[in-house]
Amino acid sequence: MTTPDPSELTAQYDRALRDYDALVGRGLSLDLTRGKPAPEQLDLAADLLTLPNGEYTAPDGTDCRNYGGLQGLRELREIFSGPLQVPAEQLVASDNSSLALMHDSIVHALLSPVPGAVRRWADEPRVAFLCPVPGYDRHFALCERFGIEMIPVPMTPDGPDMAVVEELVAGDAQIKGIWCVPKYSNPDGTTYSDETVRRLAGMPTAAPDFRIFWDNAYAVHDLTEDAVQIADILAACAASGNTDRALVFGSTSKVTLAGSGVAFFGSAPDNVAWYLGCTAKRTIGPDKLNHLRHLKFLRDEDGLRAHMARHRAIIRPKFDAVERILSEQLGGTGLASWSKPLGGYFVSLDVPEGCAGQVVSRAAAAGIALTPAGATHPYGDDPADRTIRVAPTYPALGDVAAAVEGLAICVRLVATEQRLKAAE
Amino acid sequence: MTTPDPSELTAQYDRALRDYDALVGRGLSLDLTRGKPAPEQLDLAADLLTLPNGEYTAPDGTDCRNYGGLQGLRELREIFSGPLQVPAEQLVASDNSSLALMHDSIVHALLSPVPGAVRRWADEPRVAFLCPVPGYDRHFALCERFGIEMIPVPMTPDGPDMAVVEELVAGDAQIKGIWCVPKYSNPDGTTYSDETVRRLAGMPTAAPDFRIFWDNAYAVHDLTEDAVQIADILAACAASGNTDRALVFGSTSKVTLAGSGVAFFGSAPDNVAWYLGCTAKRTIGPDKLNHLRHLKFLRDEDGLRAHMARHRAIIRPKFDAVERILSEQLGGTGLASWSKPLGGYFVSLDVPEGCAGQVVSRAAAAGIALTPAGATHPYGDDPADRTIRVAPTYPALGDVAAAVEGLAICVRLVATEQRLKAAE
Repeated sequence: MTTPDPSELTAQYDRALRDYDALVGRGLSLDLTRGKPAPEQLDLAADLLTLPNGEYTAPDGTDCRNYGGLQGLRELREIFSGPLQVPAEQLVASDNSSLALMHDSIVHALLSPVPGAVRRWADEPRVAFLCPVPGYDRHFALCERFGIEMIPVPMTPDGPDMAVVEELVAGDAQIKGIWCVPKYSNPDGTTYSDETVRRLAGMPTAAPDFRIFWDNAYAVHDLTEDAVQIADILAACAASGNTDRALVFGSTSKVTLAGSGVAFFGSAPDNVAWYLGCTAKRTIGPDKLNHLRHLKFLRDEDGLRAHMARHRAIIRPKFDAVERILSEQLGGTGLASWSKPLGGYFVSLDVPEGCAGQVVSRAAAAGIALTPAGATHPYGDDPADRTIRVAPTYPALGDVAAAVEGLAICVRLVATEQRLKAAE
Repeated sequence: MTTPDPSELTAQYDRALRDYDALVGRGLSLDLTRGKPAPEQLDLAADLLTLPNGEYTAPDGTDCRNYGGLQGLRELREIFSGPLQVPAEQLVASDNSSLALMHDSIVHALLSPVPGAVRRWADEPRVAFLCPVPGYDRHFALCERFGIEMIPVPMTPDGPDMAVVEELVAGDAQIKGIWCVPKYSNPDGTTYSDETVRRLAGMPTAAPDFRIFWDNAYAVHDLTEDAVQIADILAACAASGNTDRALVFGSTSKVTLAGSGVAFFGSAPDNVAWYLGCTAKRTIGPDKLNHLRHLKFLRDEDGLRAHMARHRAIIRPKFDAVERILSEQLGGTGLASWSKPLGGYFVSLDVPEGCAGQVVSRAAAAGIALTPAGATHPYGDDPADRTIRVAPTYPALGDVAAAVEGLAICVRLVATEQRLKAAE
């Protein structure tokens, strides 16, 4: 792009203002805030609403109705073992929500030493986590809730900037963890390169109890038929002699039913024993009937892949619409750049520095709800005020298109206004 | 009873030894360890295995399949509001297991100050809980896991010995809680008197953040048609000006399905806001489809009461068998006393001091599994070695009878052996 001359800039701004006024006049009420499945996606799992269809016996003879079975149904763990790259015997199937398992893993580490730790984290003078940015606001909320200091690390197209990560963890024994969404990262869709995974697994850390929180939330959530592969973090850690370094999380929240799924925790045997030991005090066992329900519904890994293809058929057009409209409206303007994810639930839109908050406000005033600017950064503070997360799965296709068209107008308005002021 | 003369004592012992040898010869394999519902009880909730029967919309229009709804379905909370004596708007319906909610309440209190606290419990030099004994081993395990000191308090027929409780909590600001199972207490079946409830609610405590963990596990689990009533702890606390003192817990684990039930947390508004604020970081919401399933199955409080009557028809004969056999075998011998519960899941059997561990060992050697002696006390240590918990619900009626007959033989054997030795 070239910087337009002042009269052209004024004309651009005037056009944007007219378009924005018309947008406000439409009285929209649209929501691109959260990564929620659309009702049509939930309909794909309609069979879960009558399963287990009167049955209650697991393949191994367990009465799923009664207490017990802390690790969850073996046969369900086997389905997710491949996609999550965790041997079934090192995988725990739990209740709804991997967020809960991440929360509990931090709680357990705060209150009971993790394998290799000198002391529990609650007794450390300071606990810090590395937070690749942009990242997932609920990860950051967990840190904030537990008083864990967050250290931002920039993302690159290959994952977190490993030179920065390596230097930080080597020099500070109070850095106890890093948040990673390794595949189709929230929000920018980045997939970690094999080299990034290798370096994360192998890097020297000053903390003996450093943990990678490997939130593989989008392990099977491909937007293309050629599923992206990531390197096996547990194998990489074991190969480097850092066997206990990674904790793997996943769930069916965006596979079957968002509020009634099954979450998974996986790790090396020492960590699994530690996790189950702590968890045994909290519960006698997970909802095994929901495991049986999922087992009967998904059947096997092929069944899971086929089910995800049906999700893809619903949400791919929405992501295509975002890409098409942003290209049409903002392509070549130099006003914005955005991710073109191959999977996951989000598009990350970058606007000129200092504009994200205003764009979100303008959109809100026009009836288009967006995640607050800054939410993709620790403490809700994006120092560049640049990143906006777009979540296109929940609204109907037409609403996604209308919302993104409106969003593009807001970007043009705020960014040209900024340019005009700079030119004054 | 009168103490028998030595020859009579020897004869009693010889008889017990013969009976015990015959018992071992039968090669039994019976289990009276855990308070688990029997398969026939679980069958009562068979409809849950096909519900919600294709539907997913709550009465208020919520799509129960998707994220959200942290407090749980209102209509389900309304069913349990009366039995748990908590206004529906102050009740939280969650996932499986009240144990998890008790665990989380302690975790939250350790890591975030409870309303009225000077600091979070993790930063206290010492945290202690009062533990009425005999009590529930999983309560004690939670304390042990979190390094909370346990101070035993004797139970009386009216609940914990309130003179002891009042003196302790008035004089020690580090005593932050007390475990209470107010109705059909685990294991002795005691129901707290109204006066006990009033004193618990009103007593001065040195700690400003003292909490009663009110585990109303057996709120609707009556063994007679005349349900026992307990005083309303939240109302009593409010009336005393200690509004935030009590946290109420309950669940459907022994109402519908032990592994797939709904748990409840209830308290004063300040505590509920604190609990939900902490919980919001852990999860976006509970399994609302399981709430809908329970709502459709139980329908209303009358439906709940009718369902519990069907449980009573199954388990009452088992409790009657325990009472009958213990009376026949041990009545008038002076060798044992036991509780005659009007509800709940347990019978507490007291044997002569120093005998409980041996009785449990002898029973195990005869193929009758009992909860380890001492489990009813903090740290698994019953200083008098006297209390044995009997859980008669899970085995079939014939097995309960056989197991309790065997248990009575073990009591006669161990207790007469002790008397003989004392007489030597």
